[in-house]
Amino acid sequence: MNKPERIDAATEETMLAMGRRARAAAHALSLAAPEAKTAALRAAAKAMRDATATILAASEKDLAAARAAGRPAAFIDRLMLNEARIEGIAKGIEEIAELSDPVGTVLAEWARPNGLRFQRVRVPLGVIGIIFESRPNVTADAGALALKAGNAAILRAGSESLHSSLAIHAALVSGLKSAGLPEAAIQLVPTPDRAAVGHMLAGLEGCIDVIVPRGGKSLVERVQKEARVPVFAHLEGLCHTYVDKDADLDMAVSIVVNAKMRRTGVCGATETVLIDKAAPAQFLPALVKALIEAGCEVRGDATAQGADARVIAASDADWATEYLDAVVAMKMVDGVGGAIDHIARYGTQHTDAIVTANAETAERFLREADSAIVLHNASTQFADGGEFGFGGEIGIATGKLHARGPVGVEQLTSFKYVVRGNGQIRPT
Amino acid sequence: MNKPERIDAATEETMLAMGRRARAAAHALSLAAPEAKTAALRAAAKAMRDATATILAASEKDLAAARAAGRPAAFIDRLMLNEARIEGIAKGIEEIAELSDPVGTVLAEWARPNGLRFQRVRVPLGVIGIIFESRPNVTADAGALALKAGNAAILRAGSESLHSSLAIHAALVSGLKSAGLPEAAIQLVPTPDRAAVGHMLAGLEGCIDVIVPRGGKSLVERVQKEARVPVFAHLEGLCHTYVDKDADLDMAVSIVVNAKMRRTGVCGATETVLIDKAAPAQFLPALVKALIEAGCEVRGDATAQGADARVIAASDADWATEYLDAVVAMKMVDGVGGAIDHIARYGTQHTDAIVTANAETAERFLREADSAIVLHNASTQFADGGEFGFGGEIGIATGKLHARGPVGVEQLTSFKYVVRGNGQIRPT
Repeated sequence: MNKPERIDAATEETMLAMGRRARAAAHALSLAAPEAKTAALRAAAKAMRDATATILAASEKDLAAARAAGRPAAFIDRLMLNEARIEGIAKGIEEIAELSDPVGTVLAEWARPNGLRFQRVRVPLGVIGIIFESRPNVTADAGALALKAGNAAILRAGSESLHSSLAIHAALVSGLKSAGLPEAAIQLVPTPDRAAVGHMLAGLEGCIDVIVPRGGKSLVERVQKEARVPVFAHLEGLCHTYVDKDADLDMAVSIVVNAKMRRTGVCGATETVLIDKAAPAQFLPALVKALIEAGCEVRGDATAQGADARVIAASDADWATEYLDAVVAMKMVDGVGGAIDHIARYGTQHTDAIVTANAETAERFLREADSAIVLHNASTQFADGGEFGFGGEIGIATGKLHARGPVGVEQLTSFKYVVRGNGQIRPT
Repeated sequence: MNKPERIDAATEETMLAMGRRARAAAHALSLAAPEAKTAALRAAAKAMRDATATILAASEKDLAAARAAGRPAAFIDRLMLNEARIEGIAKGIEEIAELSDPVGTVLAEWARPNGLRFQRVRVPLGVIGIIFESRPNVTADAGALALKAGNAAILRAGSESLHSSLAIHAALVSGLKSAGLPEAAIQLVPTPDRAAVGHMLAGLEGCIDVIVPRGGKSLVERVQKEARVPVFAHLEGLCHTYVDKDADLDMAVSIVVNAKMRRTGVCGATETVLIDKAAPAQFLPALVKALIEAGCEVRGDATAQGADARVIAASDADWATEYLDAVVAMKMVDGVGGAIDHIARYGTQHTDAIVTANAETAERFLREADSAIVLHNASTQFADGGEFGFGGEIGIATGKLHARGPVGVEQLTSFKYVVRGNGQIRPT
């Protein structure tokens, strides 16, 4: 009965070998010409289009297995590829190809009285491990972003999307080859063996520099708990929109409905609406009505229930729930201070917004709310690297170290200090 | 016999309570006026001078215990405080007080076609845990740097320096009080209980954001191995100076001797000198002679031994040894490529230098050597936050995430994105 152990030993050796190849590829990539990376990505997009039939056939295998396993419709939709989605993936790779190359950018420069000239210069991070679940497009998005920043990537797809991911990966590798870059620049774990994740979280003997989990809360939770290397992620996006007494009501209604209902399953969706107790009397019923008419269930405190019979009683658990659904919690608070306190207690340092026409109140909120993204008079659904102008993102991070907020190409880099002298020695 | 366990439970509760106080203080500090932080540091420096007699008496206790324990002279010297050193510590605090406040600085700003205006704004990191050994001045340096950046600090002094550190800490607290800042902004673990370190490394239930170890390799090794929170540190500074065939020999001699011998115990001291095989014949004997005359033992490869009878044979272990002493390893390499390869194999990504008059060779080295600090025509002993113009540092980090190189006030901060709109909602 030592079969599992033998299988795991084999997986470990496979994974460590992938790690070593990735480290060597990362070294080559860190010195690669910007043009080579761009050419590899353009060629990968072309290879993806050329391989549409192959990718669709692979996807059909994943879909058949998912249907046989009785997976829910939302799951099947995340997994599904069609011609339009493959074209979308190819376009996404081309957009990343055209981003400016971050490597070598001078972030700061200064001189010292002794004549030494200092520069802080962007360098790649190294090897990025990306662990994802059912969306096969992450293979292309994450691999392309990592490559553009000069990093090697080790991708681990969910077993449900493995056939599709392998087919997409083959197109990426063909792009790398045609540009003369190492094939190991983007590797995909070729088996569905779950032990692979554990090995990646342990860091492959120093061959992984950072892990990015892309998936549901249980995946992120496991990664954050077990990883022995740094993780760029957020566990929950429990985002708030606070409507101040000095808000323009039409703007507040428009922003709140968009922030909650544009897409309810994204991490930047508002989960709790906070309303100033001192707001004019029509604010609360207008906000409740607009949300309910947009198809949202409203769970409110006593005041909110009093304002509209359709409001369901909220329990304390509602303030701490990321619904990711057409449900919102609603609470009256004591002005901007009350909103900041509520967010400090229940928020997840992801994205929080204030709607107010009062500049002073807005500035207080923007300063004191301790979140990666704070917005004034705009929807929390702007929490997205594309909307920031980053040209793509690998995720949104809520940690305070290194990458915070949307993790785009620049956030996948580090830096080094370059010091130029003409013989300076340090006085004793 | 469950006494140790009870003691540890008490320590745990003490430590967790310190963590909670630190978190609350960090919140207050993140909103504190720059003037309050400056005032607190100025007052702390004054309190330090006023308490000179008390601090000296405390130091005498530490010194008596160290002498009784038969500690070596170098240890006693690190531990020792006198009037001049106390004045130096006070001056150091005053210098940190006058640094510009990083909190609130706008790091980047841009607008999007939809009118949203984005800013990336510096915010404090939160709570910094600093674990150090025998140098009591770290209490003041690290506490002051953390405070200037708006962070709370939890300091854990070595048991050997605890009396001195407590006396210095009292002066810092007096400064905080006089400026109306929370006393818990800078806390010192009041007991020598070793279990405190373990609790800090576990993160005090989310109340420590980053750990900075200040001490020898065994401390850093333990911290890097056990910490469940991010660590800013370097394990070893195995720094190289490469002398290229196109170097100016006088400059090379001056830089190499300074890089090795100015102070041999610092992390930026050069440990291995690499010399280009194609360098003119007089380079090798001149470098060996200068080092030996400066009091340095030279351990060289066969060529170096052939050049001077006083050169001792190096073993492979020498290329991997951080001597921190008047000993240097010396090796001939095949040009700048050979130097880069040697550094990639044996270096610690800390600080490496090239001496050459050839600009192209220099640029290749600066680009390809994968170290936090790379220098051209200057001594590796410039690896120091003060020399970078950072006005102080809490250490030098070799990790690629967040803080790399000298960790000064700015490196002890994070950032958030502030987004200002006028009603923008995100299109579906």
